[in-house]
Parts: sequence; structure tokens; C-alpha cells
Amino acid sequence: MIVEVVAVGTELLLGQIVNTNASHIGSVLADHGLDAHYQQVVGDNLDRVAASIRTAIDRADAVIITGGIGPTRDDLTREALCAATDRALVLDEDYAQRLRERWAARGREMPESNLRQAHHPEGAELVNNPKGTAPGLILDHDDTLIFCIPGVPQEMEYLMTAMVIPRLLEVSGGPSVVVSKVLRTWGQSESMVGEMLDDLYQGSTNPSVAFLASGGEIKVRITAKADSTTTAATMIDPVAAEVRHRLAAYYFGEDDDTVDRLIFRLLEEKGWTIGTAESMTGGLVAAALTSVPGASKYVRGGLVAYDSELKQKLLGVEDIAEVVNPETAEAMARGGQDLLGADVVVAVTGDAGPGPSERAAGTVVIAVATPDDVRSHELRMPGDRERVRAYGTTSALHLTRLALSGQWWKS
Amino acid sequence: MIVEVVAVGTELLLGQIVNTNASHIGSVLADHGLDAHYQQVVGDNLDRVAASIRTAIDRADAVIITGGIGPTRDDLTREALCAATDRALVLDEDYAQRLRERWAARGREMPESNLRQAHHPEGAELVNNPKGTAPGLILDHDDTLIFCIPGVPQEMEYLMTAMVIPRLLEVSGGPSVVVSKVLRTWGQSESMVGEMLDDLYQGSTNPSVAFLASGGEIKVRITAKADSTTTAATMIDPVAAEVRHRLAAYYFGEDDDTVDRLIFRLLEEKGWTIGTAESMTGGLVAAALTSVPGASKYVRGGLVAYDSELKQKLLGVEDIAEVVNPETAEAMARGGQDLLGADVVVAVTGDAGPGPSERAAGTVVIAVATPDDVRSHELRMPGDRERVRAYGTTSALHLTRLALSGQWWKS
Repeated sequence: MIVEVVAVGTELLLGQIVNTNASHIGSVLADHGLDAHYQQVVGDNLDRVAASIRTAIDRADAVIITGGIGPTRDDLTREALCAATDRALVLDEDYAQRLRERWAARGREMPESNLRQAHHPEGAELVNNPKGTAPGLILDHDDTLIFCIPGVPQEMEYLMTAMVIPRLLEVSGGPSVVVSKVLRTWGQSESMVGEMLDDLYQGSTNPSVAFLASGGEIKVRITAKADSTTTAATMIDPVAAEVRHRLAAYYFGEDDDTVDRLIFRLLEEKGWTIGTAESMTGGLVAAALTSVPGASKYVRGGLVAYDSELKQKLLGVEDIAEVVNPETAEAMARGGQDLLGADVVVAVTGDAGPGPSERAAGTVVIAVATPDDVRSHELRMPGDRERVRAYGTTSALHLTRLALSGQWWKS
Repeated sequence: MIVEVVAVGTELLLGQIVNTNASHIGSVLADHGLDAHYQQVVGDNLDRVAASIRTAIDRADAVIITGGIGPTRDDLTREALCAATDRALVLDEDYAQRLRERWAARGREMPESNLRQAHHPEGAELVNNPKGTAPGLILDHDDTLIFCIPGVPQEMEYLMTAMVIPRLLEVSGGPSVVVSKVLRTWGQSESMVGEMLDDLYQGSTNPSVAFLASGGEIKVRITAKADSTTTAATMIDPVAAEVRHRLAAYYFGEDDDTVDRLIFRLLEEKGWTIGTAESMTGGLVAAALTSVPGASKYVRGGLVAYDSELKQKLLGVEDIAEVVNPETAEAMARGGQDLLGADVVVAVTGDAGPGPSERAAGTVVIAVATPDDVRSHELRMPGDRERVRAYGTTSALHLTRLALSGQWWKS
């Protein structure tokens, strides 16, 4: 069953609010195995809202319209639905009465404009909305099921759960579910991951395979649709095993296994604490490590040695001929262990640009010192200052993970 | 001129990410007086992306397509644009060469799939994208101007500013220009700023007044559309003066006067350097200060004293009865001056939550030590751990600015 969302509101087109309703509805539909091919956004204009509804009716089995059903004059969804389906707008006397009673109960007389909310296209069903005054609306039009729900997020969410989903599942008949697994990788470009999984991706429908890149990590998402979560998991498992096999050198965790969590798990096993000694990243690695609740159990602290003098004075780095090089990074990590009293220290030096410098902008050297060893690795990052600092931070975390798990990176 | 946005990506339909690109583009278009009637979202499916593009071409003067131009096979926008406009897909040899050189510079061989990014519909123009590898694309098709830009927000934002808007303004012709002035404030809530400027905002069309909240700062944007920049400025000036007058206690700069830049300007005047001593913010204040190119002239470095023992050992804070209190913060700032050899040190301690602690989650104490004085201020931040840390960072920067400009905050 294919469902299309039409969001109504000029404020969405102007970017004054973000269309979180569409993403909420999208994820709720996916959770229930309902497909979506398109979403639309249209401003508060009668003809254009009607045109959008007609387009959706033509290509979907069900249409969910959000917004434009309040009491004010710029709420045009009811009229537009009448125009799109060639139906008359009629008054629901029962609902009008209920609205009047609600206002009376608060000791106030109802402004007549509220009666707009008791109107609906002929043949539609009104559904009570305890979160607000505009009722939900269901219209079965030439075998397309059309829902109108408010644009206010709480009201939208309530009616999705209470009205839209039950009716869609009743009509689509079928208990199908959608399950996703995310496999996390680091150390390879999106394009190379794409090539390595090309045959799995090509023509993948159920389960489907997709890629998401963020901050230097590539996530591979495998999604299956089935009658039960057990069946879906059975469909995902062999694909996930194949992906893990092919990307073994880069794979580091699935779903909620973020790199910070893995680092803390490894520190917990060894009974170690961690600290940072940063130059180029200027505190970003320490900030990333302390972003996780419970970080204080593992993180001692960090030094941002931005000025070279501090590298000498506080980290004991002697004879800095060149700041961005492996010896300096390793000395920073060793010095950090002493200064901070931390078992493990990750050090970052580099040049994020812009401007002239001893090494090319984007050169980053990362060192990790453990109680057993110290190793360093030089990388080249693409992009501008902000991106080099962000990618450098992600790399520092991953090299720490590899050091702690005894998998020292390839150099 | 009517512009339509088509966002490509199954992850948008599934609600795995929110379509913030569409709202960003919507607000940028509105800022430049360009109209939008519809937005579309479509999944990674060749036929459906092509159909969406055709629909947009039929009803708009310009089409902006975001997403689907990366190097992997699920990036189908180029092929879909060819199908929609009945054009051949051709290779740009120059761009292919540039891509190869970029990979070679990083000492790696380019996966062949990256060549997808050097392909484009015949007749299109490739525009360099320094934020990523996929170039922007401009195609003039039967008097409809079509743009393709990446879905990665930083790349999308860059190409909107550098490529899309200049070309749209050039084509939409007309002598009209749109000029915006941003007035920056800190220290008051968005709703209160909204109320204080309600009459200026209500019914404002030209110049229009809008509010943007980010990380604890509220920006007031005044936008005028006129025949010349001079006329636009004349329209903006009285409104800007009124806003500055009403928000005098919170106003700190306009347009590019970010708080970091103002801090560096003040340090330059005094010939001072700066450092940080952070607990709760875990390095975010140091990271913010070092994010600006040229920071090394002013920033000595910083200590993240996450563990209380480091506050004693390295910052010389004695008798820590309570970590989150003014005496501790002031001692951290003083100790930071000695440790880092910095003239000015900003110190942050607090509790970002979650979980039980000595002080309520969201309590933040910030101290600033200068060569002349040390002062501290306690604040309460709303929201979760991430938000408390972000707001704490912004507050630390602003209190530093106030300390340096001799305007010590009200306590």
C-alpha cells in the first residue's frame, strides 16, 4: 500500500518551520510496512492545495494531508479537498453542537469562525481530536483513502496513532513490519564502500541496502520488510554477515555502537582512564569524549596545547623542529599521560589551514599512548578548516579504539 | 520568479533524516525575494525522480534538486535529470582529471565509481564544490533553469550561496536587490525578544523582520527589497536603530561580528592572550575559540580538568567542597592563568546532567580572570546534556567579551 503525505502551509515553504511532521509520519509509516514514494509541501493557496491533493490521489492508495484545518481563514484544506474530489462542503450539526458545548463549559461564547471546523466534504467521517479543536477527517474517495490531520505536532502525532495507522492497517490488511540494521564503518571513502558492496546494492529491494556518510564514518543500512520481526531479522542476517565480511577492515559496530561507547567499553575492560593532548583540534576530541553521559568515570581531562611553548612546558616535548610530525605527536601523548595522570592519551597535531604553514593544510598526525606502547599515524584530510578539524576528531577517536582493542592501525 | 525544490533521498521518505535542506533553501529564496509554490520529496528511484523533475519543470521557472549526486549507485539524480530532459549523460574530462589529482594529492588511487561525479547531462555546466567531491550542476532547459546540489548540508549551503542564488538573481533580472542586516543579541529568550519587537514584526513586509535563535544567541534579521543597495539600506536603518534601542541590554554586534571575532578584537587592543579552564563543557570553549582562522595569535591553549583531582593538581584549586560554585570557578580561572601563561582565562564548571549530583542539572558557573580582576556568574540552562553544554559554551564566550570590554555582566 502506497501512502503520500501532503503538508500544507506557507511557513514550510518559507523555511520558517522545518517539516518535522513529514519525517515523523514517514517513520511511522515505515514502521508499519507502509510504502511512500513522494511527499509534497504546498502553500496556503486554494487552487494549489487542490492540485497537490489531485496529484497524490492519482499516484497513491492513501493520502495524508497535514495542516490547514484550523479555524482561521488561511486554513483552506477542507475547501481544497472539496475542489479536488468534486464534493460539497457540508456542516456536521453534531460536531457543531459539541464545539458550542465545549466553549460553553469554559463559560465563553464560541466565535462563529470555529464552525469552519465542523464542516467537511460530503461523505467524510469526522474523528474526535482530544488534543485540539479541529477534528480529524477520513474520506474514502474512488478507492483512495484520504486523511486530514492538523499540522500541530502533538495533534498530528495523536491522530496518526489513533486514527490513521489503525485505518490503514485495516485496509492494507497485513501485519507486515519493517526492520533496519545499521552497520558502522570507518577508514574508507563512501565511493569505495559503494564499489565493494555494489552487487549487494544493485537491485536490492527486500532487504534493501543504503549508504549514509557522516563526519568520516560510512553507515550501511539494511532494511527488510516481512510479516514479523523474526522473519525480517532472518532476511537481514545473511546480508549483514556478507557486508561485515567484505568490510571487515573498516567495520566497527552496529546500531547504537558509536565510537565513544566502544572506547568506554574497552577502557572499562582494562580498568584504564583516558585523556587528550590536542593542538589542531583545539578541544574537539575532549569535547567528543565528554559528550557521553557517564564520561567522568573514564575521562581524566585534556590539554589544548595550541601554543608550541605549552607543548614544551606542560607536555615536555623537546626540540620541536616541526610541530606536525610523528615524533611531536608521540611526545605529546606521552607527556599527556604524565600531566593528566591518564592511562591512555590521544594526541592530535596538524594544520587545518587556511594560510601558509610548514606542512600542507589538511595534514594531521594522531598519536595514541597506552601503558604498553605509543604509536602514531599521519593522515591527509580533504576540505576546509572546519571539515579538517571534524574529520581529524573522528579519526582520533577511531585510532584510539583500534589502539585499545589491540588492532593497531596499518601504517 | 517561481522556484521549486526537489529533495531526493529514500532516507527522507522513511523519516530517518529531517528535511532541513528544504527549509534552509526556502528561507534563502525568501530572503532574496524569490517565490516558491511547492516542494517535493522523492525516493532513490530513477523513474520517480525523473517524474518529479518533470512536474517541477512544468510549473516552475527554476528547479533546485538536492541530493543524489554522490559517487554511489543509489545516487540517481544525474540519470534522472537526463531522462526528464531527454539528454545524453556525458563525461567532463577536465573534472575527471581534477578528481584524479585530488585523490593523488592524498596519496590514494581514486575508485573508478568517483567518475560518476564527473558526468552530467549534455549542455550542463559543472561548478566546483570545495566542500566536497560532487560538483554543482546548472542546466538551462527550455527556459527553465535547473540546479543540482549535494544533499550534505554544508555542501548544499555553500552552493546555494556561491552558485544558485547569484545565477537566479542574474536571470530574474530586474534592478531589485535584497539587502539584509543581522543584529546579534545574547542574554534574552527568543519569545521575549519576539514580544519586545512584536509591533515591528507584525505586518512587516518590506523591510521584513525575522528572528533566528541559535545556541543561546538571538539574531534579528531585517530584510529590504529595493532598486538599489542604497535605497535598501535607507529602509533598513531606522528599523535597525529602533531594534538596537529596544534591545540595548542584549545587542552585541551586527552581521559578521561573531562573539569570537569580538573577543579577538578586544584582545588585540589590549595585547593580551587567552586560555580556557573547562570542566562541564569538556573542551567546547577552547574548540570554539580555535575555530576561527588566525586564532593562534591569541589563544595559548586550555585545560580540560574533568576529574576534580586535576583541578587541584594543575589549577591549584584548594579544598573543593563543591565543584559547581563561584569560588571553584574563580580559582580555576586564576590557576589557568598560571598554568597556561595566558593573560585572560575563562573557566566553566557545572552539571550538564543527566543523573544525580550536588547541584541541579543545568547549573553552570562561569568565571573570567583578567590581569586586573576575576569575576564569576552562575546561570541555569534549560534542556538536555547537549544543549546545556552548547549554551554554557556560548555563555562563556559572551561573559568573556563583557569582561574584556569592561562591561562586567550584571550579577
